[in-house]
Amino acid sequence: MKGNYFEHFAEGQFYRTGSRTLTEAEIMNFARSYDPQLIHTDPKAAAESHYGGIIASGLQTLAVTFLLFFDADIFGQAFEVGVGADELRWNKPVRPGDSLTAEVEVMEARPSRSMPHCGVVKTRIRTLNQNGETVMTLVSVDLVKRDPAALGAEAKA
Amino acid sequence: MKGNYFEHFAEGQFYRTGSRTLTEAEIMNFARSYDPQLIHTDPKAAAESHYGGIIASGLQTLAVTFLLFFDADIFGQAFEVGVGADELRWNKPVRPGDSLTAEVEVMEARPSRSMPHCGVVKTRIRTLNQNGETVMTLVSVDLVKRDPAALGAEAKA
Repeated sequence: MKGNYFEHFAEGQFYRTGSRTLTEAEIMNFARSYDPQLIHTDPKAAAESHYGGIIASGLQTLAVTFLLFFDADIFGQAFEVGVGADELRWNKPVRPGDSLTAEVEVMEARPSRSMPHCGVVKTRIRTLNQNGETVMTLVSVDLVKRDPAALGAEAKA
Repeated sequence: MKGNYFEHFAEGQFYRTGSRTLTEAEIMNFARSYDPQLIHTDPKAAAESHYGGIIASGLQTLAVTFLLFFDADIFGQAFEVGVGADELRWNKPVRPGDSLTAEVEVMEARPSRSMPHCGVVKTRIRTLNQNGETVMTLVSVDLVKRDPAALGAEAKA
């Protein structure tokens, strides 16, 4: 299995994901469907704004961050479902050509009360651009499957 | 101008947005690019899961909610930029054909310290399906432009 069952996780573990570059076309395509503001969709209007050019929708930065997170196989196939997120902040604009990567730190790992075959894993995620500047931060709360072998041993005990 | 300047907002104001229906094709298209898990992209695998069929990526539910929010012209052209979100929770799966609408309650409106031409508006957003069930909740934190007329009066005072 790619990824890690709940039992693997403990406070303080640290991961760094791969990276992904956002092109102007990708930024404008996403925004046309999901965040059609001129700052994301219209290079001329964006150039005249105080941002001085197109910036990515914050939702796209979030989506790319989750993609990087999952592609890193930290949870991988043991991922059950996302519960939510806390303290999401967009700290700095993401511009065409920016290459994003994410740093992930485990804050907490505890068994789930409502889903006995899962645990809750809270991670602090920081998304960085190619200059090492933080563009977004959040705390992700996810359900991660428990190891069936460990669950079986518990049932027998 | 469509929308409302910062001065308009006060705790307790309530808005209801229009609605939008998500098709299976839209759910699968979004997920293929931004959340390629089988539960979002593969009807057969999804049918065999405990969800019993395709469900939308939580990121898409978030994106559609923000679209509904902005289409409602609550901030409209006075919107400056999203600061972030707190307490985001995906409470219930969104399925193909579900029609989403959002309820928005103003929690706080205060002048911005770092952006004097703006105020910070915090809203509690609840996304509902056609059966009135809550599928997602969050607190959105946004910068909203102050009324230039009001700012001018302050400068003269």
